[in-house]
Amino acid sequence: MTILQQLANALAQRTVEVVDLTHTLESRIPVIGLPPQYRQTAPFALDEISNFDERGPSWYWNNFSCGEHTGTHFDAPVHWITGKDYPDGATDTISVQKMIAPACVIDTTDRVKENEDYLLTIADIEEWEEKHGRIPAGSWVLMRTGWSSRQYTDAFLNVREDGGHSPGPAMDVPTFLAKERDVVGFGTEPVGTDAGQAYAFAKPFPCHQNMHGSNKFGLSSLTNLDLLPPTGSILITPPLKIKRGSGSPCRVLALVERGLQL
Amino acid sequence: MTILQQLANALAQRTVEVVDLTHTLESRIPVIGLPPQYRQTAPFALDEISNFDERGPSWYWNNFSCGEHTGTHFDAPVHWITGKDYPDGATDTISVQKMIAPACVIDTTDRVKENEDYLLTIADIEEWEEKHGRIPAGSWVLMRTGWSSRQYTDAFLNVREDGGHSPGPAMDVPTFLAKERDVVGFGTEPVGTDAGQAYAFAKPFPCHQNMHGSNKFGLSSLTNLDLLPPTGSILITPPLKIKRGSGSPCRVLALVERGLQL
Repeated sequence: MTILQQLANALAQRTVEVVDLTHTLESRIPVIGLPPQYRQTAPFALDEISNFDERGPSWYWNNFSCGEHTGTHFDAPVHWITGKDYPDGATDTISVQKMIAPACVIDTTDRVKENEDYLLTIADIEEWEEKHGRIPAGSWVLMRTGWSSRQYTDAFLNVREDGGHSPGPAMDVPTFLAKERDVVGFGTEPVGTDAGQAYAFAKPFPCHQNMHGSNKFGLSSLTNLDLLPPTGSILITPPLKIKRGSGSPCRVLALVERGLQL
Repeated sequence: MTILQQLANALAQRTVEVVDLTHTLESRIPVIGLPPQYRQTAPFALDEISNFDERGPSWYWNNFSCGEHTGTHFDAPVHWITGKDYPDGATDTISVQKMIAPACVIDTTDRVKENEDYLLTIADIEEWEEKHGRIPAGSWVLMRTGWSSRQYTDAFLNVREDGGHSPGPAMDVPTFLAKERDVVGFGTEPVGTDAGQAYAFAKPFPCHQNMHGSNKFGLSSLTNLDLLPPTGSILITPPLKIKRGSGSPCRVLALVERGLQL
């Protein structure tokens, strides 16, 4: 039997389950706010075209509008100045082969409970690797924090006078993951891949700067990471094929083998 | 080795390839036009937020807007009056397990070359099944027509005085596929799942009426169906998780085993 026949059977028998890592897109989904001198992203909005009425008696449908970086979303390399020249760095030019890749899930929930600004360190990654093996090239690294439980509340953006407070990678982690581990990307639960306070780092926004500068991707506003094993799942992360898109809201799915140790 | 480890290896070694069945979303992508008494869908539009300039010196991103049924897109059961009450019939409530499913590809390219209004018949399906085996429950049936080569030209919508002219399923096919074969959905290359002239059928819009009435899905504006084998590929069709979405533009991917007979 071919591998795809085995996969089809496993999906039908649910020995491989599909897990939804996506928040629902609705008007109350929070979007990142930038300092006022910069142009802001639009919030998500639905506009009903018809709903079984005189505008369309047998059909219901909507128009919608949003920023490319809204809700659970995919960050493409051309989003950042360091990645802007990659010919295969936009949502319409990224190799589709890279849209399906294994995931390594590093659980920092306990540390984030104690410190909302917790930064994932290289030591954390090495500790994880001692237990689960070296992060394979071409994998996603996902930082599990429990942050998704704050979705749709003010505690999700968690903005104070000095900006957002949310966890993310420490300053040297993105370069380590891109260069030493050759990951496909880095994913998180808060609104962006960088920590809320990353604007104030000595080298600001390290995930955007260094992951995209290495033609790597980002995923943010993920949920249900507690349903993934540390290794062994496969992520499906297909952004909309927007012409020169810098990213897109994304239905992020994971394949998980039933019976794997969570 | 687990099935997912085998899949990860096959993807890395490209013995399983990912094929993109999606047209690029850009302003010139055609959208369906309805009779003037009904409300129309919006076209796709991009609005640049910043592009490494004073609006955002280190970042490039866009807002975008469109109808849920724009470009390569997914039709959910609640789109149609016959499917409106399925609790698991909207983009945010459909089981994610149904978003990954095998595909059966029926090639009608030669017949469509001779007749733009060609309708796929039950006899065509039975002829296909004689060669390739019975359509498995839970599969997609995709009608390959070559129509995608018309994308971005007037010949894609192919509108004349009496409306659109494009191929689709014959009147009795959707019920046959839903009830006799228990497919997950029906997919096509033109702008919608029903034929251009399906409004004038004795029972109009049979695919919308009967597939969605059976809680089945639609895919339309697919491309690259010539890269799929008749059987053996697996489709990945994750719509955006729009709250009570009737559908969504979708990045449709297929997994194809290298070396399978095309």
